[in-house]
Amino acid sequence: MLAAPDGRVVATTDFLIEGRHFRRDWASAADVGHKAAARSLADVAAMGAEPSALLVALAAPPDLPVSWARELAGGLAAECARGGAHVIGGDTARAGLVVLAVTCLGDMAGRAPVLRSGARPGDLVAVAGRLGHAAAGLALLEAGLTQDPLISEHLRPVPPYDAGPEAAGLGATAMIDVSDGLLADLGHVADASGVLIDLDSAALRPGDRLLTAARAVAGSRRHSVRTDLVTRPADDEARRWVMSGGEDHSLAAVFPAGTRLPPRWKVIGTVAEGHGVLVDGQPWAEPPGWDHFSAC
Amino acid sequence: MLAAPDGRVVATTDFLIEGRHFRRDWASAADVGHKAAARSLADVAAMGAEPSALLVALAAPPDLPVSWARELAGGLAAECARGGAHVIGGDTARAGLVVLAVTCLGDMAGRAPVLRSGARPGDLVAVAGRLGHAAAGLALLEAGLTQDPLISEHLRPVPPYDAGPEAAGLGATAMIDVSDGLLADLGHVADASGVLIDLDSAALRPGDRLLTAARAVAGSRRHSVRTDLVTRPADDEARRWVMSGGEDHSLAAVFPAGTRLPPRWKVIGTVAEGHGVLVDGQPWAEPPGWDHFSAC
Repeated sequence: MLAAPDGRVVATTDFLIEGRHFRRDWASAADVGHKAAARSLADVAAMGAEPSALLVALAAPPDLPVSWARELAGGLAAECARGGAHVIGGDTARAGLVVLAVTCLGDMAGRAPVLRSGARPGDLVAVAGRLGHAAAGLALLEAGLTQDPLISEHLRPVPPYDAGPEAAGLGATAMIDVSDGLLADLGHVADASGVLIDLDSAALRPGDRLLTAARAVAGSRRHSVRTDLVTRPADDEARRWVMSGGEDHSLAAVFPAGTRLPPRWKVIGTVAEGHGVLVDGQPWAEPPGWDHFSAC
Repeated sequence: MLAAPDGRVVATTDFLIEGRHFRRDWASAADVGHKAAARSLADVAAMGAEPSALLVALAAPPDLPVSWARELAGGLAAECARGGAHVIGGDTARAGLVVLAVTCLGDMAGRAPVLRSGARPGDLVAVAGRLGHAAAGLALLEAGLTQDPLISEHLRPVPPYDAGPEAAGLGATAMIDVSDGLLADLGHVADASGVLIDLDSAALRPGDRLLTAARAVAGSRRHSVRTDLVTRPADDEARRWVMSGGEDHSLAAVFPAGTRLPPRWKVIGTVAEGHGVLVDGQPWAEPPGWDHFSAC
């Protein structure tokens, strides 16, 4: 049983499926536990709630080593601790592959929940946490490059959970966690709120770590027979990771103009009348030769 | 977001996996929805809580007809309505087979939760709901007999959800829903409480519907080459359905001696010092020739 002192509970449930969301040859069991918990904890934090409890259902092949399940549980517990929550229950079943279904509960702690639908023209758009790091890590793994520390940000994203309740306390009008990619997720906010979001590319320039990783990935592709990949400029790829890469589970929030934001919130755009998401007033064009990002 | 007026929430999560918990050639999509909801609602009711909300994660092959998913949602919603709950969210993903992960939340409505661990020597054991009907329905399906109304009790068990909060209000010291079979589930209560449960076989005699079904199943086996099955007396099989058949999701509860029980609660045994579960003071022996019941 779980205390719900606010008298209101938010809840979210998500699958993590082997071969779709993780690969056991790339991710350790502890990595999978961290990631499974992070996805759900971030989703709850993005409503402005404080994560309180996780329920974890695990289906697995009968030959899954017990040590794997134990390390998974360790990863889940460690990430929960980072988010202020506990694993309180679950279920196990047999299946041909590893399937996790994670439910996260959160408490509103007296605040109103922050939805996707409250953004208003004139508001500011800001982000807390990293953008493009998880996508960079995946691209490095796919390129066979295993040494870059960005890989760990794909395997174990580090969402800033406490930024969610913080944003709610600052009066955020809308919020979402970046799971599908910044443009896609802000598109959900723009649609739900009936507004236009215009992003500032200068605030979204890839940092040195992403540029270096993109060049390493591009270098590894010089040996590729796929000329479309070889010729794609590395810096474009880094920009794409920032704009369209998912799974960082950073928090993107919308605040009334004039809100004094703590330093970890970086303003990246504004809300206007209209619909959809623009970058510098223009539709975002994927770099040429791009075939769509897909996890695993 | 969900109201939790009591300030305490109970939560449970369960898988329902194609080929293990249901077969799409036997169960309609609506049946699967009813059953998936029933399992979770009963689990919450067995803590004495009032089910409030379901979160449903559905993984399915890409060629699953949209109509199947729609009928599944209809079954989930209808069973939730029977239990006083609503589907409030979920997730979807692709997988090679249909996997449902259902989380149910419940509210304590001011009562203390009923655990498995509170049974004390001298208490009474009682059950509300049906025993053996779901097992009979499965046996009929396995025998190729498709006309018996008991089959619907395998496909759509009808747990008496409101009996859970009722038992809590009556002072139940322990409670469980019968998912694995009466003996197995009361074994969990006996273990958690550190007591012996002694059942009264006279109170657990199979009714006419079960006896008739057992004879029909036995009749269908006269054509079987398995003499162990042919020679098993039909009435033994009906008794076994009552004692060991799972998935009825009836509620088995333990009450202080002298509790005035409403008519739907049938006293089936008593609690004593010791450990384990006996029937008429003896260990229960499965009828000879029995190979263990397994769903699907």
